[in-house]
Amino acid sequence: MLAESIFTTPLMEALFSDVTELRFMLAFESALAAAQADVGVIPTLAATTIADVCQQTDWDTEQIRQQTLLAGNPAIPFVNLLKERIGWKSPESVRYVHWGATSQDVIDTALMCQLKQALEQLRADLDLLNRQLTTLAHTHQHTPMMGRTLLQQALPITFADKVMGWLDGLLRSVDRLDRIMKECIVLQLGGPVGNAVTLGVHSLAIREKVATTLGLGTTKLTWHTQRDQLADIAAMLGILNGSLGKLANDVILLMQTEVGEVREGAAEGKGGSSSMPHKRNPVTSTFMVAIAHRTPALVASLLGSMMQPHERAAGAWHSEWPVIRDVVKLTAANLHYANDLIGSLEVDTERMQQNLKSTN
Amino acid sequence: MLAESIFTTPLMEALFSDVTELRFMLAFESALAAAQADVGVIPTLAATTIADVCQQTDWDTEQIRQQTLLAGNPAIPFVNLLKERIGWKSPESVRYVHWGATSQDVIDTALMCQLKQALEQLRADLDLLNRQLTTLAHTHQHTPMMGRTLLQQALPITFADKVMGWLDGLLRSVDRLDRIMKECIVLQLGGPVGNAVTLGVHSLAIREKVATTLGLGTTKLTWHTQRDQLADIAAMLGILNGSLGKLANDVILLMQTEVGEVREGAAEGKGGSSSMPHKRNPVTSTFMVAIAHRTPALVASLLGSMMQPHERAAGAWHSEWPVIRDVVKLTAANLHYANDLIGSLEVDTERMQQNLKSTN
Amino acid sequence: MLAESIFTTPLMEALFSDVTELRFMLAFESALAAAQADVGVIPTLAATTIADVCQQTDWDTEQIRQQTLLAGNPAIPFVNLLKERIGWKSPESVRYVHWGATSQDVIDTALMCQLKQALEQLRADLDLLNRQLTTLAHTHQHTPMMGRTLLQQALPITFADKVMGWLDGLLRSVDRLDRIMKECIVLQLGGPVGNAVTLGVHSLAIREKVATTLGLGTTKLTWHTQRDQLADIAAMLGILNGSLGKLANDVILLMQTEVGEVREGAAEGKGGSSSMPHKRNPVTSTFMVAIAHRTPALVASLLGSMMQPHERAAGAWHSEWPVIRDVVKLTAANLHYANDLIGSLEVDTERMQQNLKSTN
Amino acid sequence: MLAESIFTTPLMEALFSDVTELRFMLAFESALAAAQADVGVIPTLAATTIADVCQQTDWDTEQIRQQTLLAGNPAIPFVNLLKERIGWKSPESVRYVHWGATSQDVIDTALMCQLKQALEQLRADLDLLNRQLTTLAHTHQHTPMMGRTLLQQALPITFADKVMGWLDGLLRSVDRLDRIMKECIVLQLGGPVGNAVTLGVHSLAIREKVATTLGLGTTKLTWHTQRDQLADIAAMLGILNGSLGKLANDVILLMQTEVGEVREGAAEGKGGSSSMPHKRNPVTSTFMVAIAHRTPALVASLLGSMMQPHERAAGAWHSEWPVIRDVVKLTAANLHYANDLIGSLEVDTERMQQNLKSTN
Repeated sequence: MLAESIFTTPLMEALFSDVTELRFMLAFESALAAAQADVGVIPTLAATTIADVCQQTDWDTEQIRQQTLLAGNPAIPFVNLLKERIGWKSPESVRYVHWGATSQDVIDTALMCQLKQALEQLRADLDLLNRQLTTLAHTHQHTPMMGRTLLQQALPITFADKVMGWLDGLLRSVDRLDRIMKECIVLQLGGPVGNAVTLGVHSLAIREKVATTLGLGTTKLTWHTQRDQLADIAAMLGILNGSLGKLANDVILLMQTEVGEVREGAAEGKGGSSSMPHKRNPVTSTFMVAIAHRTPALVASLLGSMMQPHERAAGAWHSEWPVIRDVVKLTAANLHYANDLIGSLEVDTERMQQNLKSTN
Repeated sequence: MLAESIFTTPLMEALFSDVTELRFMLAFESALAAAQADVGVIPTLAATTIADVCQQTDWDTEQIRQQTLLAGNPAIPFVNLLKERIGWKSPESVRYVHWGATSQDVIDTALMCQLKQALEQLRADLDLLNRQLTTLAHTHQHTPMMGRTLLQQALPITFADKVMGWLDGLLRSVDRLDRIMKECIVLQLGGPVGNAVTLGVHSLAIREKVATTLGLGTTKLTWHTQRDQLADIAAMLGILNGSLGKLANDVILLMQTEVGEVREGAAEGKGGSSSMPHKRNPVTSTFMVAIAHRTPALVASLLGSMMQPHERAAGAWHSEWPVIRDVVKLTAANLHYANDLIGSLEVDTERMQQNLKSTN
Repeated sequence: MLAESIFTTPLMEALFSDVTELRFMLAFESALAAAQADVGVIPTLAATTIADVCQQTDWDTEQIRQQTLLAGNPAIPFVNLLKERIGWKSPESVRYVHWGATSQDVIDTALMCQLKQALEQLRADLDLLNRQLTTLAHTHQHTPMMGRTLLQQALPITFADKVMGWLDGLLRSVDRLDRIMKECIVLQLGGPVGNAVTLGVHSLAIREKVATTLGLGTTKLTWHTQRDQLADIAAMLGILNGSLGKLANDVILLMQTEVGEVREGAAEGKGGSSSMPHKRNPVTSTFMVAIAHRTPALVASLLGSMMQPHERAAGAWHSEWPVIRDVVKLTAANLHYANDLIGSLEVDTERMQQNLKSTN
Repeated sequence: MLAESIFTTPLMEALFSDVTELRFMLAFESALAAAQADVGVIPTLAATTIADVCQQTDWDTEQIRQQTLLAGNPAIPFVNLLKERIGWKSPESVRYVHWGATSQDVIDTALMCQLKQALEQLRADLDLLNRQLTTLAHTHQHTPMMGRTLLQQALPITFADKVMGWLDGLLRSVDRLDRIMKECIVLQLGGPVGNAVTLGVHSLAIREKVATTLGLGTTKLTWHTQRDQLADIAAMLGILNGSLGKLANDVILLMQTEVGEVREGAAEGKGGSSSMPHKRNPVTSTFMVAIAHRTPALVASLLGSMMQPHERAAGAWHSEWPVIRDVVKLTAANLHYANDLIGSLEVDTERMQQNLKSTN
């Protein structure tokens, strides 16, 4: 789709690319083997061989993609490819690849590694936005404008009042982001039926070590079919997008020809019309509203996938994969637009004054 | 609808009744007047008269209901009714009723008072459930059964493993509930355009006092069109219902004739069939799954209502009213069923053993 | 909830009341018995006794409500109550009550009877609305106003252009309504596992007769777990509400103080503000937007309930019950408001002219 | 995402590629110019030059992609590119490119051209599926098995009963597909504010000609902000996916180790487990369920975007772009899997017999 880049950012595309996904899958297997060698469950040779091979970068992601359709998930062809390469170096180490683990362990963990980096970026972008909004509010603390309720002029406010309102909700989402980064970015490692039996008596130590290596938190138990943390991440991002959508929608309303109190920053070629060259349309805020229209349904999709049967779902788990990625990409794009919008927003204080006077 | 009571509890019906809603609206006006008299903004006589009248219990809620359709919200007819009664007692106090406040202040605050009590009940019910699950897990820590992935038999687990899995997600929702009770149950008080100007120079003191009286938290600013906290409440309850749905769905799957490892507790007349008297159907877990099917869309509804224009929305705010109530009622019913289900669950350890053996 | 009546109409409340629901359940049992007597499957005495008792109006719906929580659905206590009364008159007829049928047959069929009447009302209301819009467009076929894209003034249109746009989508929804009334309002009658075996060799004839008596269509097979027609009804109503929401949102935007091109019709006490007595707020269009915000999620809820297992669902079916009713009630309210809004809309052609000139 | 290909088909990827999208945009401009030359609105030279250039295949889609972020939509950079090339051949023809049209005309029309081809493919795949199901039902018309309600064994049915149930809903979706292909695949052509004024007095003739050339239907008026037809397409596909999800979920339930009545067709490497090599997991039906979990929210997303303001939306329109494409791709994948599943389904009639007997 030609308009695809509206709904993502280059950084998120890189982070959710096949190559990065594979890199995190390799990091998982490498960390797992290292931890298992540490506690003496697998030979050191196996662990070092696995670590070596997992450093390689020339993997055939296309082959994994294709075999995913037959295998049911990408972990199975991935582990086969990995074992093949281990076999070239150390045939006796092959059996220690992915030792005690299951497909869902590597897939969920790789996703969490991606989410960790993504959320850190979102956090930084949100911080920047909030600093920008603070500055904007400070600049306009004495700029009077008309307050509007039910889209009718009501009583005066300042433009700072409006900006501080936007900021207030976003500051609460900073806390939300901090919380989910702390609580919900967790290792998955439980073996075939999630009870960690295949990991042996040192399973807790292994899980701690792998989590530490990958920079992830842990849960008391595995969460193969307990998806509340993933839903929590999505929900929090859905709320953040709602706040951003409110901000953008306010800007669009204030940009109306008849109101004219703010305007998106000008740029060569920005906001034109294919049929009316004189027009200045909202662009950035339009994208933000478009994104805010999409996220609620995606959150519902993830909530609706929580009813995962027994020890591994047949479908509900798969359905999460594109949806959580879409939510994150959309949030990244939304924050990017918000920073762009606020950073170059033109405020027409005279028009605000006129609109105030026109009604008394 | 004859089946209506499936989706609520008597306690929630009482809490969200017209009478209780009105009671909280009166409590708001009474607390507001008291706080304003305290700081000297309105006469003490006005505050005591308002307090007196707000103690009255014989209000015509039907009249408020009907006038809501004309006024656009229930606060306008409510304030008129209140002023009328104040006028009978103290005509000069009439103007101090609802002083500096706006419709949304009383409506949002009354809702928050209802939500506070509702969440306290949900918290207690969830605690009970978690205690029951802890006991069940303890009882069955050595009960072997088959673990199932993609609905295929995989490797053995214990029944405690399964129960602990259910519990793990629910324990995280205890933390979530505690957090939203602490962060999201907040006073609304900002006046017509939300900037508290009509409340005068003592607005912060007034807000603090009213919040304290009503047992609510406060936000830095008013949240007339910043709805992230309401969305947060809904999202957290959506997640909780997802976890409960997973539990119930597992029970239904384990109850299948061909699996037969658990069974809902028997009761006279429970789980029968209008056509096959010999059958024992899941009932309680069926209701739980029905609820879990409904909540994701309701969360999306609230997230989709966040884009509220300017200083008060024209529609998006109204759309929240029934939806947040439905989410809360559904959660209450779901927790009630869960406690009932777990409290009387029949576990067939022999059948678990047989199923284990049948596959080796 | 004091604001509850915003989201329904008195007519829909009556149609979806316990009493009406019960009346249709009785009509089903009566029609079934009559059809079975006709083809000689049950004795004529049984059929006439059942017909007689089903005419009675003094049923204890409260008892059905309460036993529903134990039985899992309202059909089981209903059939028991019915059998009890038949027993008083003709003990030997008791066994022919609900003969060959199952709970879902009577519950789904009663719902369809309700939906049939509801859709007929919606159809009439939509017709009226479209006639009103046609008149409005005719009146304003030469009323120039500014066309607006991305909420920026663009090029002139006529007010008729805008009204005809609203009308165009609604006319397509007339066809949609006609189609679902013809295709989706169907009898449910298949017996315990849906294959009509318990209805005997005359099952097709029986189904035809019952459908004719109740004024319903039939499907080739029963649809106990094939819910596409119910989803179709909901989806079509969702689309209609989307079109109505667009209309209402346009009115709200045109009512903005700074635009001022239309205004909701005045009425004593309408559109006031609890804090700003001079203000004229949108009310009717606000309710319409509130409804349009709610319906998409409800449609998703019904679509998400389609995955119903085997021959009867454990939860997904139950979840439909309140949701389809809500969709219908919301649509009825929305159409009611639309007729009210358009019937009394004040069009300020001078202001339209001014806004046109202000930009050239 | 490595698992991305689960949620689409190669054919759909090609159809929704940048290149194909551009091809349809060129086809629109070419058809428009030809029609306008036909009625004498633009010079024949302009039309032939435009036709020539629109045949070219070496366009820089990457440039369009990048400029979309500034322009707000891909049509603006596209028209600029096109004009540039026309200018090389015939400078005087440049002004006739995109004559009287607007961005939304070309974007909506190109989408409709894509949807037309996509729906034709879906229709063929659905036909094939229904033929396969008919055959399967015929084969098993006398294969007894247990019917199950609320996941409890109830009474016997035949396997044909179950298959005919699946088929029944799908046959209704054939009619739905036929209807939306006939009613909803329509030209968009209305100029900047949708009233076709910029197309001149021959606008109706031009619209007819362009529609005919592109194989599209027409609406009475343009539908720039009347999105019911797009919502209709999405809703119908949502319903179809619901029916397919039910089928797949039934298969997964029947494949349970403890039930074992059907099995997905075997293939080298299919349905294995990364940790338990002996296991045979559902794969194809798992993908189908995953898709069916995703579509309801996407339909809600499109319904929620219908409230598009005035003559062009600022955000709601953009939000449709990826969502409608996702719905179509998911449906294509789902139908592909369904054909694969049914075409190779292994039915264990003995096990059906055993399960029947085990309960009597």
